[in-house]
Amino acid sequence: MNDPGGFEILTADPGSRARRGRLRTRHGTIETPCFMPVGTQGSVKAMSPAELEAIGTQVVLGNTYHLAIRPGIEIVETCGGLHPFMGWTRPILTDSGGYQVFSLARLRTITARGVAFQSHIDGRRLFLGPVEAMALQRRLGSDIAMVFDECAPWPCDRDYACQAVDKTLAWAAICSEQERADGQLVFGIVQGGEYTDLRRQCAERLVEIGFDGYAVGGVSVGEPEDVLLRGIRDSVGVLPPDRPRYLMGVGKRHQMLEAIANGVDMFDCVIPTRYARNGTAFTRRGRYPVKAGEYKDDKRPVEEGCDCYACSRFSRAYIRHLLNVNEILGIRLLTLHNLHRFMSFMQDVRQALDAGSFGAYRERWTERKDE
Amino acid sequence: MNDPGGFEILTADPGSRARRGRLRTRHGTIETPCFMPVGTQGSVKAMSPAELEAIGTQVVLGNTYHLAIRPGIEIVETCGGLHPFMGWTRPILTDSGGYQVFSLARLRTITARGVAFQSHIDGRRLFLGPVEAMALQRRLGSDIAMVFDECAPWPCDRDYACQAVDKTLAWAAICSEQERADGQLVFGIVQGGEYTDLRRQCAERLVEIGFDGYAVGGVSVGEPEDVLLRGIRDSVGVLPPDRPRYLMGVGKRHQMLEAIANGVDMFDCVIPTRYARNGTAFTRRGRYPVKAGEYKDDKRPVEEGCDCYACSRFSRAYIRHLLNVNEILGIRLLTLHNLHRFMSFMQDVRQALDAGSFGAYRERWTERKDE
Repeated sequence: MNDPGGFEILTADPGSRARRGRLRTRHGTIETPCFMPVGTQGSVKAMSPAELEAIGTQVVLGNTYHLAIRPGIEIVETCGGLHPFMGWTRPILTDSGGYQVFSLARLRTITARGVAFQSHIDGRRLFLGPVEAMALQRRLGSDIAMVFDECAPWPCDRDYACQAVDKTLAWAAICSEQERADGQLVFGIVQGGEYTDLRRQCAERLVEIGFDGYAVGGVSVGEPEDVLLRGIRDSVGVLPPDRPRYLMGVGKRHQMLEAIANGVDMFDCVIPTRYARNGTAFTRRGRYPVKAGEYKDDKRPVEEGCDCYACSRFSRAYIRHLLNVNEILGIRLLTLHNLHRFMSFMQDVRQALDAGSFGAYRERWTERKDE
Repeated sequence: MNDPGGFEILTADPGSRARRGRLRTRHGTIETPCFMPVGTQGSVKAMSPAELEAIGTQVVLGNTYHLAIRPGIEIVETCGGLHPFMGWTRPILTDSGGYQVFSLARLRTITARGVAFQSHIDGRRLFLGPVEAMALQRRLGSDIAMVFDECAPWPCDRDYACQAVDKTLAWAAICSEQERADGQLVFGIVQGGEYTDLRRQCAERLVEIGFDGYAVGGVSVGEPEDVLLRGIRDSVGVLPPDRPRYLMGVGKRHQMLEAIANGVDMFDCVIPTRYARNGTAFTRRGRYPVKAGEYKDDKRPVEEGCDCYACSRFSRAYIRHLLNVNEILGIRLLTLHNLHRFMSFMQDVRQALDAGSFGAYRERWTERKDE
């Protein structure tokens, strides 16, 4: 476990459990609350590192399972680790492969020692357990490594959820004892499905083991919003206030705001990038399909008043055309805009927390939903 | 016809017919010899205008047929023309649709008045003749419009080539009388297949009509290299020295060098962009497949000594990985490098012409071929 001073709370919101924080890592400081774009295969889809930097991206995600399948960890290691491999100099958080226990359920077998995957590409076998996942993340050299957990599906009966928590805790204890990359932080992951007592017990036990930060996992796997929000509250309530909290895979802005109000500091989600590839634009007020016929000769930018490269130089009509004829530039411009919008959203949240106006900011989002 | 002063020859190579020139257009000056990246559908595939500018792109191509099909010329016109639509402020040359007479041969019917296309997308009918093609290019507002011609296939018997030349000339005369966009230049196109006398007659007759520049068309349609080079010589020999010459669709560097030595000033080709999407990298010395297994852990840049963004920040191993897992960034980086290589190639040619060392530069390419 690293120096707890790695995380510092700058301001606490008097009207909620929201906090404005700062997490120090070996590759730089992360101002929280923050949104982390997803770079599963070593690239935030369609974006260059220079573009990510220009819109203020502080940290990106990589995925241990996917990088182990392709190109293989040896290759990343030969290139000096994930940072030089990707050409990314700022912090990287790596997911352990625990989420693939859920998302690739048909291709894996769970045992007490870990999970045997069949590659989703060529059927090759890959065994990931707490020892293997931590070793791979050490070799990737990420700034924040996640413990190897079992992400259970939803719905999920109490017995199964209980077993998944037991495995997650046993594996977390092993993860906490593994060798790390220089300065690497390790976060525990709270599981427990929709069961309040299981989530609390899981969180308590993780805190006893002791981690540099704590994540809420097993959410955004198909459950309704009230179950999601309850899962967050159940998990976060037990966690020590002086460590960063990361909500995994949640990227609807009104949900992120509720999570922030409940004390969450970090988020990742494919929503801004994946929706861009489907032609959906995010604005300050919600989202809309740029591909819709009504924008075919619309000279306005994707979002009026936005100062990103896509909005300062191109029209909806042009981006709609590019998307319709499958030109890569269409996906690039919309991804850039959406990520810029999400980065600006988190910057606005941080400014509101700094200025003591988070309550009012949160209020404005009650009538807007990223649905 | 515009002021012939629009084209100026700065230096003539004493050892060949190569010339170092400068073409003035409404959106800026083009230093020749030059290479023009292809932006068929209003986008140079995978590139942003900012990136094209950064690598020194002087002029890009658009395609009248494809833009008429999607998004439709009305939409481009509503957006103020092709320059504002694409967010491109430098010169644009538009092809007339004549090449599609060849490339979409199964979807068109040729008559004396023009060509009836069936859309390659939805079967809708589009009629293009000299009147229509010039009107569309006027509405697109390109800096250089091409006459509507018939690009004949190869092989092609003398009778067919003769008929295609007759139509091309009749249409060229009509094109020359059409209204133009403000300051728009119009180039005639020499056809004639592999028949020396037909190419000469076609060029002579075009010069009688009088155009701002002249293109060599009907090449790079499958013929062997000696036929291609003869076609260039046959066409260019007859053209007035004080007008720019544009060789359509040829992009192998050793062929472009031979064409330059024969007095050609402008080139366009999909080679750097299309080959990038297939994983082929161009270097100063030739080309190689970045996807090959031997580069899987190669930490060197795509081309050593290259200062493009792709080469200054990323390895072959990384770009190979991105291409293998279908990440858009892989195509982006390789396209950027290849276009940068082609822009640098033309810059080197211009410098060699300025310095009087074109002969030596050309010599160095006799042992390298973009095959």
